[in-house]
Amino acid sequence: MEFTVRQIATLLDGNVQGDDSLSINTLAKIEEGTPGSVSFLSNLKYEPFLYTTQSSAVIVDRTFEPKKPVSASLIFVENSYSAFTRLLEEYHRFISYSRTGVEQPSFIGENSEAGEHIYRGAFSYIGKNCKIGQNVKIYPNAYIGDNVTIGDSSIIHPGARILDNCVVGNHCTIHPNAVIGSDGFGFAPQPDGSYKTIPQLGNVILEDFVSIGANTTIDCATMGSTIIRQGAKIDNLVQVAHNVEIGKHTVIAAQTGISGSTKIGDQCVIAGQVGIIGHISIASKTKVGAQSGVMKPVTEEGLSLNGSPAFDLKESMRAIVVYRRLPDMERRLLSLEKKTGN
Amino acid sequence: MEFTVRQIATLLDGNVQGDDSLSINTLAKIEEGTPGSVSFLSNLKYEPFLYTTQSSAVIVDRTFEPKKPVSASLIFVENSYSAFTRLLEEYHRFISYSRTGVEQPSFIGENSEAGEHIYRGAFSYIGKNCKIGQNVKIYPNAYIGDNVTIGDSSIIHPGARILDNCVVGNHCTIHPNAVIGSDGFGFAPQPDGSYKTIPQLGNVILEDFVSIGANTTIDCATMGSTIIRQGAKIDNLVQVAHNVEIGKHTVIAAQTGISGSTKIGDQCVIAGQVGIIGHISIASKTKVGAQSGVMKPVTEEGLSLNGSPAFDLKESMRAIVVYRRLPDMERRLLSLEKKTGN
Amino acid sequence: MEFTVRQIATLLDGNVQGDDSLSINTLAKIEEGTPGSVSFLSNLKYEPFLYTTQSSAVIVDRTFEPKKPVSASLIFVENSYSAFTRLLEEYHRFISYSRTGVEQPSFIGENSEAGEHIYRGAFSYIGKNCKIGQNVKIYPNAYIGDNVTIGDSSIIHPGARILDNCVVGNHCTIHPNAVIGSDGFGFAPQPDGSYKTIPQLGNVILEDFVSIGANTTIDCATMGSTIIRQGAKIDNLVQVAHNVEIGKHTVIAAQTGISGSTKIGDQCVIAGQVGIIGHISIASKTKVGAQSGVMKPVTEEGLSLNGSPAFDLKESMRAIVVYRRLPDMERRLLSLEKKTGN
Repeated sequence: MEFTVRQIATLLDGNVQGDDSLSINTLAKIEEGTPGSVSFLSNLKYEPFLYTTQSSAVIVDRTFEPKKPVSASLIFVENSYSAFTRLLEEYHRFISYSRTGVEQPSFIGENSEAGEHIYRGAFSYIGKNCKIGQNVKIYPNAYIGDNVTIGDSSIIHPGARILDNCVVGNHCTIHPNAVIGSDGFGFAPQPDGSYKTIPQLGNVILEDFVSIGANTTIDCATMGSTIIRQGAKIDNLVQVAHNVEIGKHTVIAAQTGISGSTKIGDQCVIAGQVGIIGHISIASKTKVGAQSGVMKPVTEEGLSLNGSPAFDLKESMRAIVVYRRLPDMERRLLSLEKKTGN
Repeated sequence: MEFTVRQIATLLDGNVQGDDSLSINTLAKIEEGTPGSVSFLSNLKYEPFLYTTQSSAVIVDRTFEPKKPVSASLIFVENSYSAFTRLLEEYHRFISYSRTGVEQPSFIGENSEAGEHIYRGAFSYIGKNCKIGQNVKIYPNAYIGDNVTIGDSSIIHPGARILDNCVVGNHCTIHPNAVIGSDGFGFAPQPDGSYKTIPQLGNVILEDFVSIGANTTIDCATMGSTIIRQGAKIDNLVQVAHNVEIGKHTVIAAQTGISGSTKIGDQCVIAGQVGIIGHISIASKTKVGAQSGVMKPVTEEGLSLNGSPAFDLKESMRAIVVYRRLPDMERRLLSLEKKTGN
Repeated sequence: MEFTVRQIATLLDGNVQGDDSLSINTLAKIEEGTPGSVSFLSNLKYEPFLYTTQSSAVIVDRTFEPKKPVSASLIFVENSYSAFTRLLEEYHRFISYSRTGVEQPSFIGENSEAGEHIYRGAFSYIGKNCKIGQNVKIYPNAYIGDNVTIGDSSIIHPGARILDNCVVGNHCTIHPNAVIGSDGFGFAPQPDGSYKTIPQLGNVILEDFVSIGANTTIDCATMGSTIIRQGAKIDNLVQVAHNVEIGKHTVIAAQTGISGSTKIGDQCVIAGQVGIIGHISIASKTKVGAQSGVMKPVTEEGLSLNGSPAFDLKESMRAIVVYRRLPDMERRLLSLEKKTGN
């Protein structure tokens, strides 16, 4: 990407103060800017950096008035944060655009078909009877099993594995080495103490705009489907067990694990390293603090939980504070016992 | 798969009530059945679904008597749950059967040999001097290093990595992107604060009927072997460090981590997100609750532990209950102190 | 490798007592030795094994005097532990040496160049405009994106993914299926409850002598760089979020997660399954116990922390002890209340 300050101002519907012919080839934080980069200033806490930045241009709010001389060109816009975000997206689109076509060797099985503008990287594998939509990017070393459906504009990153019969919606992103549709962890105990594998015949369904993080695992259902609803965002190294259902626009941070058959509602926010036991339902808009363990159903919407086992966040915070004073409390208790002869 | 109800009844040694000529092509839960599927009814809690199911056939116990009209064909068998499980297995075997032969390009190094009925997927890699048994399936993008032995009927899923010198028994399943035999985490501190890598020369041995979950990591031993004994089942995203030994038929749920040189006995059940420190032994038949941290050896068999650090499950449950009342306890203590002038 | 006891003694500057013509082809612990292996005795706790070991040779300190007859040949050296470590390294170097050259099919994009003595395994992928140094080993099924730089003598294990624009230093080791430079987990909440993806344009920089464990994920920065400083060692299944910085010679054990924009100092030791929240700084030489949750900045160097939330290790240990007595404390409190009529 190489644009002039003027071109960027035009794209963002802004006005330039300073040299509008400078070349811009990247984006940077205002405190890390280098010549050729464009930055933004929204939170005035960062204003001091404006007067020292090496960035060639800085996007600022139309209402902003600099208090000292600025060497960078200024681009005045309605909302500097939104404008910068838009620029980020354009830049990202530009970069993403670069991968297209089919690299060799790559593998596609019988009766599988792919839409237009697809990218299939070298060493990517697509099994039999798959339907791959338009504008899909399947990066090198990715694996798609048999009977898989992938909607339009989805991205399957390097080394992601999508196993037989799974369904991926439109505009989904599967990050590197994520595994979608591996066997659920189901074993029937035998009288001799050994376990017999319970065949896992179901699949995983990802609805539209779902994001699955790097090295995350989503197991297929024993029968039926493990379902990730529209817009849900799942971070890296998360475990989603068989027959789980995750609601719309629910966000799950890294290293959280959700046990089998649990249903999580819409717009929940689950922090990192949380564990949720199996066979329960979590109401919509539930928030769960980091490292919590949810051991019981959550039936009321909008609660904030914390701790392991998890309970009300505020109560949890109070218990945490007292916990640290436990040795002192025990001493006080002993002192009282002595005093009262108990 | 496409069978008639009659064929399924014959396979299961059952009798049909209703149309035995209907076509069956999949299995489903009774509450999720669609035309063409066969379901089962064992737990009578689900009996209401029998009268509304869309499944074409339902397997029921020979002793069962419907209380209302049923539109599905009924297959009466000795034990409906066992019969359905058997059907699941047959179906699974049928599906698994489909992958065979060698896809190109795939790689096999010098002096490596594979038995009959093998599947080697495209972009799979086998190094030098490997011995691969009969009926082994090595899926696309899997990697087998040098000097690796794999027994009969084992399945190496897409992207699984089995590094140099490892030994995999018969009937093992290595799920996608699992890593077997990566370097143990061993570093010797140097006087200048840096660390020197300690070479890891050992291997990993998986005995027969072992299952390793997706994205799980099993490190090789520094010297000697990290050993997973017969029938042990390990879920997704589990960390097994160098020189660990896991006993027969022990089950370990997702995201648990076991530190170096620890030995876990037979038939233990370790729940999810558990941490176990290094250099200890855990007696056979130990049960450990989710998110627990086992910091000490467990010498007595059959104990149930919970908490971090873990102690007796029942005591742990009592402490958990009181923990929530800590702020109240502190108030009561203060009140007593005021009253007694302490 | 096949050497005589005499050759090994010469390499280690040692003297032999016993048969110096025996053949040695592997290394083993003294208690696990077999004919053909060399072991060492440093910690005298293991001395009894010296008199029963099957190893052909044992390396001992020059000052050591056996108390019984020993069937193995003895190699006397200045420091038996150091000598054995050196032997391990030589053996490891010998084994590692075996992979070299370019296997086919492998993929290298336009304008990418690699130095001398490189190994590029079959099905490995290198994108455009990459600079790969000398003596680099890129194992089968590894993926290197566009504009990636890799320094000399680094090893990229099977299935490791290094995404666009990342920089890997000299002498780094990236273990199997690790993901370097995947998108940071950044989503902007929208008024309708959905989330919009924030493009992640930065990269990851690994300085020299960095080790990244199997299935570990290091996200790229939103802008700028996620940085792992020289000599840092990161174990398996660790999550490092966007814009994190990890200091020199810091060691992080398995399954730990570090949230976005947090900075960890030099020479810290972070145990397994620790969680660290985002946007804080941790001073150098901080030690954090297993399963801890660090929720606040750590400004003083050299502290030891434990617990979730984490606080001073010693205080934490005392609170842990009292925690188990909570039910008993509550009973004592109740008894006091009864006695005093409270």
